[in-house]
Amino acid sequence: MPEYKAPLRDIRFLIDEVFDYPASYAALGASDATPDMVAAILEEGARFCEQVLSPINRSGDEEECQWRDGVVTTPKGFKEAFAQYVEGGWNGLAADPAYGGQGLPHSLGLIISEMVASANQSWAMYPGLTHGAMSAIHAHGTEEQKQTYLTRLTEGRWTGTMCLTEPHCGTDLGIIKTRAVPQADGSYAISGTKIFISAGEHDMSENIIHLVLAKLPDAPAGTKGISLFIVPKFLPAGDGIGERNAVSCGSIEHKMGIKASATCVMNFDGATGFLIGEANKGLNCMFTMMNHARLGTGMQGLCLGEASYQGAVRYANDRLQMRALTGPKAPDKPADPIIVHPDVRRMLLTMKAFNEGNRALAYFTAQQLDIAHRSDSAEQREEAENLLAFLTPICKAFMTESGLEATNLGMQVFGGHGYIREWGMEQLVRDCRIAPIYEGTNGIQALDLLGRKVLGSQGKLLRGFTRLIHKFCQAQAEHPRFKTQVAELARLNQQWGELTQKVGMAAMKNPDEVGAAALDYLMYSGYITLAWLWLRMALVAEDKLQAGEGDSAYYQTKLATCDFYFKRLLPRTEAHRAAVEAGSDCLMQLPAENFAL
Amino acid sequence: MPEYKAPLRDIRFLIDEVFDYPASYAALGASDATPDMVAAILEEGARFCEQVLSPINRSGDEEECQWRDGVVTTPKGFKEAFAQYVEGGWNGLAADPAYGGQGLPHSLGLIISEMVASANQSWAMYPGLTHGAMSAIHAHGTEEQKQTYLTRLTEGRWTGTMCLTEPHCGTDLGIIKTRAVPQADGSYAISGTKIFISAGEHDMSENIIHLVLAKLPDAPAGTKGISLFIVPKFLPAGDGIGERNAVSCGSIEHKMGIKASATCVMNFDGATGFLIGEANKGLNCMFTMMNHARLGTGMQGLCLGEASYQGAVRYANDRLQMRALTGPKAPDKPADPIIVHPDVRRMLLTMKAFNEGNRALAYFTAQQLDIAHRSDSAEQREEAENLLAFLTPICKAFMTESGLEATNLGMQVFGGHGYIREWGMEQLVRDCRIAPIYEGTNGIQALDLLGRKVLGSQGKLLRGFTRLIHKFCQAQAEHPRFKTQVAELARLNQQWGELTQKVGMAAMKNPDEVGAAALDYLMYSGYITLAWLWLRMALVAEDKLQAGEGDSAYYQTKLATCDFYFKRLLPRTEAHRAAVEAGSDCLMQLPAENFAL
Repeated sequence: MPEYKAPLRDIRFLIDEVFDYPASYAALGASDATPDMVAAILEEGARFCEQVLSPINRSGDEEECQWRDGVVTTPKGFKEAFAQYVEGGWNGLAADPAYGGQGLPHSLGLIISEMVASANQSWAMYPGLTHGAMSAIHAHGTEEQKQTYLTRLTEGRWTGTMCLTEPHCGTDLGIIKTRAVPQADGSYAISGTKIFISAGEHDMSENIIHLVLAKLPDAPAGTKGISLFIVPKFLPAGDGIGERNAVSCGSIEHKMGIKASATCVMNFDGATGFLIGEANKGLNCMFTMMNHARLGTGMQGLCLGEASYQGAVRYANDRLQMRALTGPKAPDKPADPIIVHPDVRRMLLTMKAFNEGNRALAYFTAQQLDIAHRSDSAEQREEAENLLAFLTPICKAFMTESGLEATNLGMQVFGGHGYIREWGMEQLVRDCRIAPIYEGTNGIQALDLLGRKVLGSQGKLLRGFTRLIHKFCQAQAEHPRFKTQVAELARLNQQWGELTQKVGMAAMKNPDEVGAAALDYLMYSGYITLAWLWLRMALVAEDKLQAGEGDSAYYQTKLATCDFYFKRLLPRTEAHRAAVEAGSDCLMQLPAENFAL
Repeated sequence: MPEYKAPLRDIRFLIDEVFDYPASYAALGASDATPDMVAAILEEGARFCEQVLSPINRSGDEEECQWRDGVVTTPKGFKEAFAQYVEGGWNGLAADPAYGGQGLPHSLGLIISEMVASANQSWAMYPGLTHGAMSAIHAHGTEEQKQTYLTRLTEGRWTGTMCLTEPHCGTDLGIIKTRAVPQADGSYAISGTKIFISAGEHDMSENIIHLVLAKLPDAPAGTKGISLFIVPKFLPAGDGIGERNAVSCGSIEHKMGIKASATCVMNFDGATGFLIGEANKGLNCMFTMMNHARLGTGMQGLCLGEASYQGAVRYANDRLQMRALTGPKAPDKPADPIIVHPDVRRMLLTMKAFNEGNRALAYFTAQQLDIAHRSDSAEQREEAENLLAFLTPICKAFMTESGLEATNLGMQVFGGHGYIREWGMEQLVRDCRIAPIYEGTNGIQALDLLGRKVLGSQGKLLRGFTRLIHKFCQAQAEHPRFKTQVAELARLNQQWGELTQKVGMAAMKNPDEVGAAALDYLMYSGYITLAWLWLRMALVAEDKLQAGEGDSAYYQTKLATCDFYFKRLLPRTEAHRAAVEAGSDCLMQLPAENFAL
């Protein structure tokens, strides 16, 4: 398994030099998050991920979770690592101090999550789902529910889940069958089967708090008749747990990857549940935390891409094979290290450009999350909310698609050894492969971006973002080093608007045009977004070099990677643009039955 | 697991209607391969693959091969299936009648291999490697070696392997360490370790014949000092086997996929071997059969893409989720089948366009293989050899890259269920993932195409192929239905030549330019090649429709898929062109150590 080293230099570059988190934290009143405190947290988090989580990643994949008579056992070391995580206070890092959290900014929590998932994606699922449940209860729970559940979830004594999917529906939650029948005591009897429930059952915590979507007896049909319930594995009693509730894990799935994450079939047999938020508004409750969850899922592409890159670079420097086309580079050895070969570098630089570009995208978006949560200014909050709404589907889908490409490239660098489980490179591909699927498939993200966000706002959310790029390009149009790239970005930024108008016009006549264009439109948008972020990073690097500050090799590498991105990855926009413009006819003209011919 | 149905209609379309195999077989004197005989063979082969191999594909993946004390046990049913395969005469279908084969054309053998691998890629490895060993012995063995080994391999009583890779080298065979010491009796004592040996040890056959690359004591350094040896597991004796040879299986690999294919570490401890072909010409012996093996590996992309497509189309018609954007299509059901959604169709059509285009590429190439093997005309043979040399790396790399994309899309169509092993869709991704790696990584294929074949022939091999396209475009320039597509193909065909010249010029100054451009150049070439084949298929379909012959729905589907290919996949050439033109500087400017920054 590639040994994970947290990329602290790159993290610091983004938060200190590119996005100025310290200023942002100060402006938002996050007074605890001083630069010194942030530095200490990052270093301590890195140590935990490198020394505790990374070493049990490969073994976790081999052992998988085991199910027996409803009891799920996680792989060796998982439980102990969770205890250490809780002990270290990591679980409540960004949680509300009113319920036992440390109240640090969400962006900082997200960076810690990045290191956790890079080191061990399967393990990351357990705290990840808990954080999802915490957000839901924080946003929609009563004070009593918060005192009862949120405090213990924050403490890490209990963990949480999100129970949405059923055997016959995942995307289409309007047709769920799980029922909630009101009881005399104000609680509800929940009955139904939920599938794909991450962390639904395990041996890490005293209690598991399920957040369950279900329908009341008189609920309207469709998504407007869904309510959200808290269904604990053990009913709370006093300071701890009481009676076992009628919820059980019927089996766990055997999956392609994230094998140490328990993916459970959960059976609710008249289990006692408590309504959270308003009746029939359950889906809205879910949506309020979706931006955060989707950004987290997008980061899975970054995290596994990063882990894969680290393995691939080490291997490319160690593995001797063939001579450089320009003559031997290590004449004293039987062959040259494969990093001398241009095609190996193409693979490494593709990974590097995606990873670092995606990290910039994630941190920029996380900064908007902080502003949306904390700013005193309604105007700033609205602007941040709009950016979040627009960027979230791009984060989720673009980062997972490019992350999957990165993990596949990392494996390819290893040649035949990449296919062997022992090396751990193929595990990263398998662990990453779920990311384009769950938390809303990338097809759904694309519809969300183009249909709901861009066209649904009459272009307003798009313009809010392209205006940032436009201003940037105006400001840098004459930059001595980057003017060619700035001009290319400006051209694409304008084309983006024009392309959107074309699709919008076509969609007014035929709604299928949205679905036909969506995925390619999203990828196109992602490539342009990363181009802007790459130029922002390059400008900082260039300034540092001009000023003679810091580690020049690091900054030179940023410039070279930006150059690579513009020359070899950004041109993919052209293929996506053509696909968007192809329209829906070439997809819809055939009757469904012809597909099998 | 998606149940495999051999796509006989599509196979017949290509061999009968597009490439006219019957005329080609007649002209090449393959008098046994009458249309009736071919039809009977295809139907019988389909039945065997559907009924015997497909049902043990999923279980084989779960059981994997088991190693114990040097003995390898294949999963349940594998051995019995091999016995049935041998019994049915499939193993010797395209083998030389002088050694017990049926002498049918290689193209027909390849189509049977396609069905075998689509049904069960792991199982296909055992006869696949045997065929490789048979080709080598047929081409380079002495008459005695052929009588001893080839007859039994053809019979299927014995199986074969190819032992090339060692722990420290796979691509770079010039640095192998396995040694061959001449013995007094004319044999050689072979010592060394080979890894990644498919079918190196198993329980399917009485004997296993290893073809082993090794170095003689006085051999020159590098690839010109490699010799090829026959090393049988049991030394031949009389009509059967005698003494056990000093070759043993030290372990098997635990892999991402093709888990029912035994990938062995083989230890040769002074094993008795017999030189095959000339001393120090072992690599040349390998190269003579590489076209065939690489075409076969390329087909793995087609085969698993096809299997995945079949599963995805069925699921897309069955799975109900959301309503069509244009209004309900199945109002009597709780939701519409997901095939109504444009993005699901985008995925299905991408798969379909790749699969059918790749099948056309494979069958066109296989026809060249027949001509190269059988034609009386030296000119025809040379033309076919040139086309083979040119197309083989494209087949291997383009078909495996696009096949991997197809299997990933098929899995994506299934949503969360695609990630669950039980459905079998993720297995197809895992089984496919080795194809871009083995039999020469796709990076190596790309160097072979651009460096060795195209630039190495001063463009002659490229011109031989683009001339075919040029003639086609001239002939069809005014076609009432296709003139736009023909014009686009002609434009790209010309651009192909110009782009090649640019790279060639740059490469004269800097050899790294070849490596920097190679992979994108290969993909670019593949997309143009498939465009030509798609138009050829569309022309046939259009003619049939105009003539009112045959199944119009089938032909309409071909036209629609061609339309899709031109509108949504062919524009990817633009991204690859830009990457080719980007040159080597953006890859090579950084010192190797900077990659880890």
